[in-house]
Amino acid sequence: MLIPKNSSGLFTDFYELTMAQGYFLSGRKDNKAVFDYFFRKNPFGGGFVIFAGLQTVLDTLENYHFEKSDLEYLESLGFEKRFLEFLKDFHFEGHLSSFTEGEVVFPNEPIVRVEGNIIETQLVESLLLNILNFQSLIATKAARLKLAAKNKVLLEFGLRRAQGLAAIHASRAAVIGGCDTTSNTYSARLFGIQPSGTMAHSWIQTFEDEKESFAKFAEYYPESSVFLVDTYNTLEKGIPNAIAVAKEMEKKGRKLYGIRLDSGDLAYLSKKARHLLDAAGLAYVKIVVSNQLDELVITSLLQQNAPIDAFGVGTSLATGMQDAALDGVYKLAVIRDKPTMKVSENVLKMTLPGKKNVFRFRDPESNCFCADGIELSDFDYPQQIYHPHFSEKNMPVSDCMHEQLMQQVMRKGRKIIENKTIKSISQYVHKRLDLLPDENKRFENPHIYKVGIGKELMDLRKELKDKI
Amino acid sequence: MLIPKNSSGLFTDFYELTMAQGYFLSGRKDNKAVFDYFFRKNPFGGGFVIFAGLQTVLDTLENYHFEKSDLEYLESLGFEKRFLEFLKDFHFEGHLSSFTEGEVVFPNEPIVRVEGNIIETQLVESLLLNILNFQSLIATKAARLKLAAKNKVLLEFGLRRAQGLAAIHASRAAVIGGCDTTSNTYSARLFGIQPSGTMAHSWIQTFEDEKESFAKFAEYYPESSVFLVDTYNTLEKGIPNAIAVAKEMEKKGRKLYGIRLDSGDLAYLSKKARHLLDAAGLAYVKIVVSNQLDELVITSLLQQNAPIDAFGVGTSLATGMQDAALDGVYKLAVIRDKPTMKVSENVLKMTLPGKKNVFRFRDPESNCFCADGIELSDFDYPQQIYHPHFSEKNMPVSDCMHEQLMQQVMRKGRKIIENKTIKSISQYVHKRLDLLPDENKRFENPHIYKVGIGKELMDLRKELKDKI
Repeated sequence: MLIPKNSSGLFTDFYELTMAQGYFLSGRKDNKAVFDYFFRKNPFGGGFVIFAGLQTVLDTLENYHFEKSDLEYLESLGFEKRFLEFLKDFHFEGHLSSFTEGEVVFPNEPIVRVEGNIIETQLVESLLLNILNFQSLIATKAARLKLAAKNKVLLEFGLRRAQGLAAIHASRAAVIGGCDTTSNTYSARLFGIQPSGTMAHSWIQTFEDEKESFAKFAEYYPESSVFLVDTYNTLEKGIPNAIAVAKEMEKKGRKLYGIRLDSGDLAYLSKKARHLLDAAGLAYVKIVVSNQLDELVITSLLQQNAPIDAFGVGTSLATGMQDAALDGVYKLAVIRDKPTMKVSENVLKMTLPGKKNVFRFRDPESNCFCADGIELSDFDYPQQIYHPHFSEKNMPVSDCMHEQLMQQVMRKGRKIIENKTIKSISQYVHKRLDLLPDENKRFENPHIYKVGIGKELMDLRKELKDKI
Repeated sequence: MLIPKNSSGLFTDFYELTMAQGYFLSGRKDNKAVFDYFFRKNPFGGGFVIFAGLQTVLDTLENYHFEKSDLEYLESLGFEKRFLEFLKDFHFEGHLSSFTEGEVVFPNEPIVRVEGNIIETQLVESLLLNILNFQSLIATKAARLKLAAKNKVLLEFGLRRAQGLAAIHASRAAVIGGCDTTSNTYSARLFGIQPSGTMAHSWIQTFEDEKESFAKFAEYYPESSVFLVDTYNTLEKGIPNAIAVAKEMEKKGRKLYGIRLDSGDLAYLSKKARHLLDAAGLAYVKIVVSNQLDELVITSLLQQNAPIDAFGVGTSLATGMQDAALDGVYKLAVIRDKPTMKVSENVLKMTLPGKKNVFRFRDPESNCFCADGIELSDFDYPQQIYHPHFSEKNMPVSDCMHEQLMQQVMRKGRKIIENKTIKSISQYVHKRLDLLPDENKRFENPHIYKVGIGKELMDLRKELKDKI
């Protein structure tokens, strides 16, 4: 995590600190607690989320601490000396259980479980939500873009429209979801991603002549040049100039890598461009397009048989537009070994009490995912799962294969899983997405994937609700 | 800027680096260039943007450099030794002219002008866009929220839904736009903002009894307690418990600060809450609300006379939802002292050539802003301004008062303006917004503010276009 290490302790909502002091002053600092991380709604009107950010969370929690100057700042706000003394040596020493990073996940199932004392589990709430909500949002967007782009190349171009420093982890999540490269050089280095880019209009404008600008670029980048062809007139100038330079390159035994279209009708222009390139014997020159792309535009372009080889996606990928946030929450499920729940004015916001496991059921014939079931961790996987709010709706899952989705990933504040490359996380994403039926992956009104609760959990919730 | 200082040079799109190397290798590194920063479309369907992020840009440019390890990384990617040698001692030594941070700005007018050699002006493109686009987006959202909330208190609660590290500067921009406090303790310290927060449901759930949880909190925070009243049942439990504790506090000479409603119908519940509190003699207890608020919900709540004292806004404020990005661009206007422009497939994306100034015209009677005019900097302010694309549409501005909006803010890479507190920037925002007519500020189909070009600029553009 790139929060300046000196100050990670303060990267939290103020109320976490006032509550933490309250727990401390009321002699409850060693009370054990269990919190669940989950979200309530799939973004983009879609049928799934790709869970991302776990490794960032683990790295950050391992380094979570307060600097002397942080404590002086808190003192200036009126925090008490004995609490600040306690924070001086504070480290996160709790346990985390979690789904695998890159897992396909669904609303209302606990994805990460945090166990520890009430102070450490409370203090990390904002941090954990901040990281997981954002990276999961972007990984999901990227996965949707990849579903649309199929075997075409996907380039992340979002730095300039990203939300400030969000750009850093946006690139990480974009590659997890399915992007091949990033334009963000900082993130490329940090996460070991292939950096990529073409040229800007300014490059071309600094030359008297467009053709000369292409020729010069090709001289320096003979293997990787992609000429931007829309500075003056795409069909009448840009592409003819690109072709002329490509033919000159051939004489030196070089091959132009590609051209980029960045305005106009991309379906129309890519077909015209392909035709012109092919007619000039340049069938190997690739066509890259950019300009306000998203998964729907890409789907439409490919349905129109636009001969595009690579899509450069910026704004919608780096920000998750049209949804700029995943609504993940962090809710107390157990306190002092007793299950607890929040009722709220809205019945759908009622939480699931107790320490739980999540199982994924797979169809024995197709091998595909068919439903997830949540059950209290003291019990085995459920034979029957129930709708979380309408128990009349239920289904047997005893004939299905099952797998347990949660595993312990941090023990006493130390990571106990190996770091993975983001490329391997990305491969896991697509291996798992392949097992999700198409009807759950379609962009318009996707079929709702079933997430049910087991009988023991249902009974516990009813009991607690009746008590309240 | 919180980009780890060691690596700010790499926080750029890869193509800026390949182009920079191209300028270097082609012996053009000392070519002078002028770039303009501007945006094309107001976000949120609104009528204006609040320009924010300037100070962050200036601080970052003053420290822009490449570390040894950055250069080693670039070498591993194939960059040439002599270019890397050049980057070793590279600093930004250009000039910036800019509107005042906090200014009310409009589409298509140059807001920042960057002058220098082509390498330094090109390399900082992504960085400048990243910072200004995001902070301006959030400051604009916050200003809209403040217009809706009027004299009520506005609390920024966005850390958990912010786009990762974007949270840091989201808080800065939110306060510039009109927020009073932030929940983000890190940003509060960094930017000198008042931190604030109430309590989470988890605090209440860690007690056997809601009333006890309130009483304990009030014991530790006698001046600032805000009780969250919807954990079990707002009207039947939460508010009665809050009242009971507030009455006990009175016996000790203390006053409960407020209660917070976080679910259910906030208009209905705030009225009920106000009535119950008043009936108990607790007219001084404030009502804070939160839960998916935005400027339209706040407007509606106040139109319904909801007796709310403070609004806590998270997701929509920290991410700018529904628009997650401002579409700001950075375009070459002058190269080697010659004006230049990009034509593009889309006529509306045609840029404005030359070095320009921007003037704001004010109605001599009302003193309000009536139009902005852009003219080449070699000429005085225009007497007549023309629609940038349809010159038949034009208006005289000779009877108006005028002010010049751009001033030099950085000279040879050093900031030449004083740092301001974000509170003073915020005051400037609202002083200026007061001068913008209501019809440009309304949320639905706002009147379009006129931004025109002067005759000299119009003629130059025509001349260049004809040449192309």
